[in-house]
Amino acid sequence: MSAAPFVYRRRIEFRETDAAGIAHFSAFFAYAEEAEHALLRSEGLSVLMRDAEGPISWPRVAVKADFQGAVHFEDELDIAVTVVRLGTKSVTYQFQCTHAGRQVATIEITAVCCRLFAGQSPKGIPIPVEIAEKLRTHLTSVG
Amino acid sequence: MSAAPFVYRRRIEFRETDAAGIAHFSAFFAYAEEAEHALLRSEGLSVLMRDAEGPISWPRVAVKADFQGAVHFEDELDIAVTVVRLGTKSVTYQFQCTHAGRQVATIEITAVCCRLFAGQSPKGIPIPVEIAEKLRTHLTSVG
Amino acid sequence: MSAAPFVYRRRIEFRETDAAGIAHFSAFFAYAEEAEHALLRSEGLSVLMRDAEGPISWPRVAVKADFQGAVHFEDELDIAVTVVRLGTKSVTYQFQCTHAGRQVATIEITAVCCRLFAGQSPKGIPIPVEIAEKLRTHLTSVG
Amino acid sequence: MSAAPFVYRRRIEFRETDAAGIAHFSAFFAYAEEAEHALLRSEGLSVLMRDAEGPISWPRVAVKADFQGAVHFEDELDIAVTVVRLGTKSVTYQFQCTHAGRQVATIEITAVCCRLFAGQSPKGIPIPVEIAEKLRTHLTSVG
Repeated sequence: MSAAPFVYRRRIEFRETDAAGIAHFSAFFAYAEEAEHALLRSEGLSVLMRDAEGPISWPRVAVKADFQGAVHFEDELDIAVTVVRLGTKSVTYQFQCTHAGRQVATIEITAVCCRLFAGQSPKGIPIPVEIAEKLRTHLTSVG
Repeated sequence: MSAAPFVYRRRIEFRETDAAGIAHFSAFFAYAEEAEHALLRSEGLSVLMRDAEGPISWPRVAVKADFQGAVHFEDELDIAVTVVRLGTKSVTYQFQCTHAGRQVATIEITAVCCRLFAGQSPKGIPIPVEIAEKLRTHLTSVG
Repeated sequence: MSAAPFVYRRRIEFRETDAAGIAHFSAFFAYAEEAEHALLRSEGLSVLMRDAEGPISWPRVAVKADFQGAVHFEDELDIAVTVVRLGTKSVTYQFQCTHAGRQVATIEITAVCCRLFAGQSPKGIPIPVEIAEKLRTHLTSVG
Repeated sequence: MSAAPFVYRRRIEFRETDAAGIAHFSAFFAYAEEAEHALLRSEGLSVLMRDAEGPISWPRVAVKADFQGAVHFEDELDIAVTVVRLGTKSVTYQFQCTHAGRQVATIEITAVCCRLFAGQSPKGIPIPVEIAEKLRTHLTSVG
């Protein structure tokens, strides 16, 4: 059971189009990430935040996308964001991108909760409870 | 059986890094596409070419990526490109990205051969024989 | 004499930051162009439009920028857009970028009104009267 | 008097083109910066380096560009880099961009030598002598 998904609206900018006249496929990962960050902000969180123990970030470990259609300069994209998997240390977001009701792209991004230490690689940690609770409210039962 | 894969070398540019100090994940799709286009050029082809019947292009229908490590400003990325699936109308490339021998990312891009008509959506067509033959030389048996 | 300038608000996205932790200077040209296009839309125009005689576009011939400060991920930038020069064939926009009232960057972009012909270079034309009239309402007397 | 300038060659990538079919003007700042960084590397320097006293970087304070022509996907750009002003704390690079001998763009970037301190704004410092000496070898007398 879940409420209406979080939706982020984004206009296609001119520099994001290519010589084929449509938004370049790599721009969709930027759109998806913007939508993720907007969802986190709406929950009082950030993709680069700090708690009592130091900075926390969310490196991406897996991404996939299916493209069903094209969008053009000045088209508006509606990106519905849901959490489709919430693990102990990772979260998978799904982004359904539509333009004027037409399906354009479906994207999934899996990010791992990490603590950052100066001069070291990010270290995976269990998602802090108060963050996990907020993400859980966006969890959809898929299927 | 296959020969050594086509390898494209690419240095990480400063603007491609982010405030976490590493190359942003979305930049890897640009790197992969550059490698694909370099492979096509090495075969006398282009991702936006023209034959007797008009322009041909390769819209992307699916992309996926797994990230195993991070790279930093001025690191050199070696991107080994192979064809892992060659259908009648589509091709799937795989990009193995390493830095100094360390595995960094694995990316797959599936593109559909399309003919472009002014003012219309791209229309999928069988890959012309002379193009398919050149792509086939990059086909790996993934076993 | 002029009314309050057109203002476009834009949040700094994560991918636009660099390893120095701030928005990369090249991103400001994207911000300025977004603001220009938003101004044109607010006037019922577009940077890529079409009149009875065919497509019109605005190639850039000169750009300059001064940077007075830095902005970080999730900062909001307010971009005030005015027209500082309106020639027969060209227009120069100025973009005053501030964050929380602090001056961050001043950008100028000069674009030439051109008609596009398939397979030819863009050809400069006098700005059509109805477009010039709309741009003139954004003209500031500088100095 | 000066020797032949440092030249950086760069191919126009597909994602850098826009719906007008040419390289987007904002991409030229990326090209110029790549050329600057390549020049610094050729001198054993980096735009983000570290000496005995800590990290040094080069925030940009002014940029300008004139565009004389357009370039398309797969065109090769030759970027000749020279130092046109070398101050106590700042350096101004000029980038002459040509394609197949045709002038395409002229760009200038002024950067200030700064020391970075964690959690503080960059602080301008006199360019260290050994760096200034290397930059001076690229100084052209603009007559």
